[in-house]
Amino acid sequence: MFAEIVTIGDELLIGQVIDTNSAWMGQELNKIGIEVLRVVSIRDREEEILEAIDNAMKRVNIVLVTGGLGPTKDDITKQTLCKFFHTELIFSEEVFENVKRVLAGKIPMNALNKSQAMVPKDCTVINNPVGSASVSWFERDGKVLVSMPGVPQEMTVVMTESVLPKLHERFHTDVIIHQTFLVQNYPESVLAEKLEPWENALPECVKLAYLPKLGIIRLRLTGRGQRREEIKTLLDREKVKLEEILGEDIFCEEDTPLEIIVGELLKKKKLTVSTAESCTGGSIAARLTSIAGSSEYFNGSVVAYSNDVKTGLLHVASETLERYGAVSEKTVIEMAKGAMKALKTDCAVATSGIAGPGGGTPDKPVGTIWIAAGYKNEIRTYKQETNRGRAMNIERAGNNALLMLRDLLK
Amino acid sequence: MFAEIVTIGDELLIGQVIDTNSAWMGQELNKIGIEVLRVVSIRDREEEILEAIDNAMKRVNIVLVTGGLGPTKDDITKQTLCKFFHTELIFSEEVFENVKRVLAGKIPMNALNKSQAMVPKDCTVINNPVGSASVSWFERDGKVLVSMPGVPQEMTVVMTESVLPKLHERFHTDVIIHQTFLVQNYPESVLAEKLEPWENALPECVKLAYLPKLGIIRLRLTGRGQRREEIKTLLDREKVKLEEILGEDIFCEEDTPLEIIVGELLKKKKLTVSTAESCTGGSIAARLTSIAGSSEYFNGSVVAYSNDVKTGLLHVASETLERYGAVSEKTVIEMAKGAMKALKTDCAVATSGIAGPGGGTPDKPVGTIWIAAGYKNEIRTYKQETNRGRAMNIERAGNNALLMLRDLLK
Repeated sequence: MFAEIVTIGDELLIGQVIDTNSAWMGQELNKIGIEVLRVVSIRDREEEILEAIDNAMKRVNIVLVTGGLGPTKDDITKQTLCKFFHTELIFSEEVFENVKRVLAGKIPMNALNKSQAMVPKDCTVINNPVGSASVSWFERDGKVLVSMPGVPQEMTVVMTESVLPKLHERFHTDVIIHQTFLVQNYPESVLAEKLEPWENALPECVKLAYLPKLGIIRLRLTGRGQRREEIKTLLDREKVKLEEILGEDIFCEEDTPLEIIVGELLKKKKLTVSTAESCTGGSIAARLTSIAGSSEYFNGSVVAYSNDVKTGLLHVASETLERYGAVSEKTVIEMAKGAMKALKTDCAVATSGIAGPGGGTPDKPVGTIWIAAGYKNEIRTYKQETNRGRAMNIERAGNNALLMLRDLLK
Repeated sequence: MFAEIVTIGDELLIGQVIDTNSAWMGQELNKIGIEVLRVVSIRDREEEILEAIDNAMKRVNIVLVTGGLGPTKDDITKQTLCKFFHTELIFSEEVFENVKRVLAGKIPMNALNKSQAMVPKDCTVINNPVGSASVSWFERDGKVLVSMPGVPQEMTVVMTESVLPKLHERFHTDVIIHQTFLVQNYPESVLAEKLEPWENALPECVKLAYLPKLGIIRLRLTGRGQRREEIKTLLDREKVKLEEILGEDIFCEEDTPLEIIVGELLKKKKLTVSTAESCTGGSIAARLTSIAGSSEYFNGSVVAYSNDVKTGLLHVASETLERYGAVSEKTVIEMAKGAMKALKTDCAVATSGIAGPGGGTPDKPVGTIWIAAGYKNEIRTYKQETNRGRAMNIERAGNNALLMLRDLLK
């Protein structure tokens, strides 16, 4: 069963708003066996809306439209849908009561708000419990078009409470199951080569996708078919084969950010962590603390950009800095030890490198980043040597540091 | 001049990845007078790619395609474009050299990497300095199609360095001049009310846009027309009027990130800075160090998540923490002073608060964040009291801290 999403709003095309709705809808539709074939974002213009809807209705059985339902002049989705379905707007007492309830004293009721109670005649109107724009469900020739508000907080509520259950009931659909694997230690091309024989032998109804992300590759297996149990068995069988091929290089079997994976591990083991960051500049600490509840295992960090801070707060020996340089294995080892001591934690990660674009030397070109992960007396180190620009070098170093810490704690 | 964006990748349709590329591209294209009419996201399927490209090429003169250029089997954009343009893939020595340079010996070169050096014959190949997927620029019947990698970090580099300048040169477009003003100290609705009379009197060819961003409002004046000098004169006239209305509340007349504004100021005054961060968790340090050359003025930070670190490394008095709590004006003042001393800097910012979602109390609800900015003996403080979720609370606190530091140094 296929669907298309049509998102309407000038703000999407001039880039003022990032369309987060479609990704959310894609995920939720997938869970009930509906595959999104296409997402089209268009402006608030009658002819462009008509064309997009007409094409979508020709291609698929389910068309989900968001946006253009506000009370102001520029919002024309409702009128345009009436034109497309050869119907007209009528006043709905029920919707008007809801508009009054939702606005409840927040905004004085005016003509613009009242226009929110005008709904297309030949459709099923679905109540929006959290906003003044109602949802219209049209059926024509066995196909369904649903028009919803574009505000994410309203769209997610009406989808979850009404639209998804109705779609699931209305259409007989395939079952789709996804399984994601996070893989470390491989460049994409090397992994692809290694997996090729297995991939080529996958059953017809199981597909593999590669989603690389700076030092990590997400592998996604997707199975689809009529019977959940059958698909599940097939996927489980392929999962076992993949685990045999990749072993410990699969570090997670869900699409979870590293800072959560590491955080959960620390919580489970009742350990605390700190960071000692030079070139990553506090970004690893920022990632760890982006997770609510991280105070349970994260004590703090020293961002040691200058050598003074490395010696002063992290007790790196001046001799080490003079002899080996700030970007060296010895330095990051002493930084990690210094962090565990100064911040009183069980483990720590440390980074020091040349993030770029300047500062490289023949010996230590831009992109050279030394990373250490320590747990009590055990310290592991890694020299990162790719250069993909300052921001990506920093992010990759953070990924590697967190991966190394995870390996150490396992 | 109109453009369409076609984004390719199964991950977009199943919702595993949010399409942030299109919004960025929309913004940048607007700046050179190109309006995006439509964004279409489709799967990695030949017939769907062919249909989307064919339709887009019929409607507009500029089609920008992203994604599907990786070395693995699921990526088929390059081959499909060859089919569409009746051409074939040929080996490019130059692209191969770039692939080798980008992968920099880190990855054993295999057949899949080599396939990255296969490029469409009848097109202009543009070098991708930060990745192995090259950019293809096709011209047919006065229309242009450009195929770019979908990885945001690569797409933004090739767009900025090559594609945008080439499009600007290739197409004769209206002159569009933007002038951005960064404004502090105003909620959007209050600012809009204050500016209404002036906005209503703007000449026809000058438009005003509000782009609010967590404590900062970006005001963008856009003038468009045939003659650059004429537009420039009109904009300059409005600029003077706006400066009269808002005075010092305009803190920058370019759309420059705060970390650059503050960095430039520190460099000019030959001052150094440090941060002492509790709830912002190192994110202010990460922002400051995201700028190349920041080692000139940034010494380091102490991320003091636990009270132990606040007293141990920043020398906050235990008495202060006991009496006023970690989230208090006294605490952030002592943190800022402690950072200046421990990290030997001329100035510092400090934060301590409840980022949420948990941890709030009736006295100090979620979103309460104390911020201090210090320069030698002068310390200013501010209590942030809005709650828009953990990530936004943290980002807003960073904005406020940097704004306060800037004001202090002025």
